Amino acid sequence: MAERRLKLCGWGYEDDGLSAGETETLIGRLADRYDLGVAERRAPPPMDALSLPKPRLEAPAALQSFCTVDAYDRATHTYGKSLPEYVQIFDNRFDNAPDFVAYARDEDDITAVLDWAAGVKAAVIPFGGGTSVVGGVEPAVGSGFNGAVSLDLTRLDAVVEVDKTSRAARIQGGIRVPAMEAALKPQGLTMRHFPQSFEMATLGGMIATRSGGHYATLYTHIDDFVESLRMVTPQGILESRRLPGSGAGPSPDRFMIGSEGAVGIITEAWMRLQDRPVHRGSAAVLFDDFYKAAEAVRTLSQSALFPSNLRLLDPGEAYNNGFGDGAQSVLVLAFESADHPVEAWTARGLEICRDHEGQYDDAAGSDPEAHRSGAAGAWRNAFIRMPHYREVLISLGVIGDTFETSITWDRFRGFHDRVKAATLAAIEEATGQPGNVTCRFTHVYPDGPAPYFTFQGMGRDGALIEQWRHIKEKASDAVIAEGGTITHHHAVGRDHMPWYERQRPDLFGDVLAAAKARLDPAGILNPGVIVPAP
Amino acid sequence: MAERRLKLCGWGYEDDGLSAGETETLIGRLADRYDLGVAERRAPPPMDALSLPKPRLEAPAALQSFCTVDAYDRATHTYGKSLPEYVQIFDNRFDNAPDFVAYARDEDDITAVLDWAAGVKAAVIPFGGGTSVVGGVEPAVGSGFNGAVSLDLTRLDAVVEVDKTSRAARIQGGIRVPAMEAALKPQGLTMRHFPQSFEMATLGGMIATRSGGHYATLYTHIDDFVESLRMVTPQGILESRRLPGSGAGPSPDRFMIGSEGAVGIITEAWMRLQDRPVHRGSAAVLFDDFYKAAEAVRTLSQSALFPSNLRLLDPGEAYNNGFGDGAQSVLVLAFESADHPVEAWTARGLEICRDHEGQYDDAAGSDPEAHRSGAAGAWRNAFIRMPHYREVLISLGVIGDTFETSITWDRFRGFHDRVKAATLAAIEEATGQPGNVTCRFTHVYPDGPAPYFTFQGMGRDGALIEQWRHIKEKASDAVIAEGGTITHHHAVGRDHMPWYERQRPDLFGDVLAAAKARLDPAGILNPGVIVPAP
Repeated sequence: MAERRLKLCGWGYEDDGLSAGETETLIGRLADRYDLGVAERRAPPPMDALSLPKPRLEAPAALQSFCTVDAYDRATHTYGKSLPEYVQIFDNRFDNAPDFVAYARDEDDITAVLDWAAGVKAAVIPFGGGTSVVGGVEPAVGSGFNGAVSLDLTRLDAVVEVDKTSRAARIQGGIRVPAMEAALKPQGLTMRHFPQSFEMATLGGMIATRSGGHYATLYTHIDDFVESLRMVTPQGILESRRLPGSGAGPSPDRFMIGSEGAVGIITEAWMRLQDRPVHRGSAAVLFDDFYKAAEAVRTLSQSALFPSNLRLLDPGEAYNNGFGDGAQSVLVLAFESADHPVEAWTARGLEICRDHEGQYDDAAGSDPEAHRSGAAGAWRNAFIRMPHYREVLISLGVIGDTFETSITWDRFRGFHDRVKAATLAAIEEATGQPGNVTCRFTHVYPDGPAPYFTFQGMGRDGALIEQWRHIKEKASDAVIAEGGTITHHHAVGRDHMPWYERQRPDLFGDVLAAAKARLDPAGILNPGVIVPAP
Repeated sequence: MAERRLKLCGWGYEDDGLSAGETETLIGRLADRYDLGVAERRAPPPMDALSLPKPRLEAPAALQSFCTVDAYDRATHTYGKSLPEYVQIFDNRFDNAPDFVAYARDEDDITAVLDWAAGVKAAVIPFGGGTSVVGGVEPAVGSGFNGAVSLDLTRLDAVVEVDKTSRAARIQGGIRVPAMEAALKPQGLTMRHFPQSFEMATLGGMIATRSGGHYATLYTHIDDFVESLRMVTPQGILESRRLPGSGAGPSPDRFMIGSEGAVGIITEAWMRLQDRPVHRGSAAVLFDDFYKAAEAVRTLSQSALFPSNLRLLDPGEAYNNGFGDGAQSVLVLAFESADHPVEAWTARGLEICRDHEGQYDDAAGSDPEAHRSGAAGAWRNAFIRMPHYREVLISLGVIGDTFETSITWDRFRGFHDRVKAATLAAIEEATGQPGNVTCRFTHVYPDGPAPYFTFQGMGRDGALIEQWRHIKEKASDAVIAEGGTITHHHAVGRDHMPWYERQRPDLFGDVLAAAKARLDPAGILNPGVIVPAP
């Protein structure tokens, strides 16, 4: 029902993907590393041969005008973008397809769906960008429900009101980031929050999953940009007051942020915005020693200089993304401002790097276009293209995935080494051959980094999901055992629930369950996510 | 039971208070403004004549070793530091005195008190610094309880563990700020969070009430310094994981922060710390027009320069605090850093002020000791002494109080004018003569300031509380009607509950009630605060 159609298996829209050249380069690299065998690349099933289960429930007359049982809609709303989900699409398995998709046009439509669903005991799965890599949107709700509906929110896509004075805007939850930014641009404003999924991601989805954005320091999660929220729950509207700051009781916003559709649907938010940056300084700094580089990043994170970019790539990560020689770590350091030249900031940032044996050329920091042309630009381009790679990897039988966490600086080195070792061991256990694990920092705090691990191994068609699951479980066990968080910004979804339950305080789990029982007494909203199914 | 004894009526310790000179100056100023009449200054009742009700409950044998019914302890734990509380002390009214005071030494003591209290249906009122100005510590719990215990936490006063690498420390909840800072200083660290109450305030109390600190921008509330928390609830321990950042579900910390003792006792926290600043720049900037000054502050708040001080005093506020001529507004602007010289920051900050017609002298920003010696220093001293004034004002029959809020920039001017007018009108209604209302910004955000109003009027002994209540109610009504928060950093307590209930979303109120029912099923913890009594 959208103008530009979503891809069934893969990232983004049907008319986009890796170019022939990009694919060839990728395959060449993989062939250097693995025996790709004689296997042909797998293709997703044709749209007219999808193996969709017969709907168990039908939308009642009152909902018909915005609901559909079209195979394309049901199939594109069955899965997010995780590896096991891609594999299931290749396998033409849509066991948990929603019985229908509701394209809500407004809050009344949402309320109507929730009321009906509570009455017939149907699960309702909120669907924004559909970019979940943690099983957040698959209607895998078990036998306790009489059916499941995917509630698509992308028609709630307006920037309703802009307050230039306070630099804030009231925006509907279903808008995608590019459309939101396009609407803000004529006002000279930007949210400047770009998760890797930004092309497809919706505002409400980002808030519900505590997405991590462009800024590497300070404003890392979307949390800090939220001025107020409006949520439709099965029990009515929950709307917070628009306030720059408040100390009146526990924050209602922080309760809704991260709730992943388990207690309500975020339909609107007042978001804090930025002026568009005009001053920039950026540089790539090379380090011979990854841990020395991490020390430079620690010092920078504790300097209160607040660089917009502070992404450290370990040697393998740098090499895989097209820069470095595979021996050196690369730190992409950048400052930006809409208010003032950033020379003093950049100079001090580079000085800290030099104090930690970082190497950079004399022109570093002085090219105002370096954020697009230099290492920062190269990283930016690689970052934007990355989501397109997964579908090709999987089509070749290669297991490629990422996981991300955070850890305090005092424990970083041991944490990094043991998590990496556990993941490498798990790849070899699962696939019978060595794999690859690399690390970068996506976000950095004064008290610790957010390490982001990428792993890869040569899988076997027919066993990819179980091989992946073994690696994922061992890696997650290590993250939790070593003191990290099961997710820094990918969310919990269904995939992370076992580790989330180990991580979050038991009594806080009880609090969330009590909150859900109050707001969603029939338990229909995204069952099994955040609050375990009863 | 403490070595340095708390004052019964007034701020801080018995051996401290306004000097004779300070008192004389104050009285002189007041006499210029009001007819102070022939009334002698009232004095609190002597310690051996306190009118304390007979305890209804006795501590059981297992608790006796850390509990006391001593009159001094009961009296000093009956009230916080609000105007009506001071008046009641002058009136020798201790109707809601706790039946006994429990000086918990550790978590086992806390658990023992909670277990016993749940069994006998006694209310438990957590008592940290006892600095509440909103009725947060008075055991005014109504007839639904068989008694009330004040649970003093100041013996949990250790800095347990310091992690210099991550700049964090594990600290017990009952420690007062000066003791905490003294323990951190040898490590070169500081929390640098100084609410006006810092001399008495405890860490756990600041977290439970979302205190506002030294930094005027960026790290305004204590919320951002919390890395993890440990809370004793009637149902057991709720402890969050130590993480620099996380996106795993709604934040458990943000649920505990601001809970004001209604669901548990914060016994320990890992706090994010700072290096001690060594670079400084500060200046006082004068403005002929308050609203132009506010525009300068708005621009500064949106510049991402993050000044440590950005306190704007309106003409009356400046004059009352010993600087300015009563016609000009004063902006105290300061930058500080432990890492880098702040000249570039200060220069740009002053340039923004100049663009908005701010006036400052040529040496502005260049004196590294100006934070102690200049206008910033004068403000610092006035700020620290302020809590001592209230007891003298009240002893003279003068009503003096403050309230604070926040509002987005687009609504600031109308909000300010109408809240001020409503408060002035209420003073005249209540006292029959004009009073005084001034405003300053304590904290500033990119999307709006936190205005802090000080009001004063000549009251009448015997009617002070009802006069005060009329003004407080009208001012609070205006704050809520005009879109503000009932508190930015003074907390909710019992005094703000009616407006808090109007402000916070009803369904979020239900969530908090459900959380309390789960964690505190007997409803014994600080009844009536945050969650209305059933």
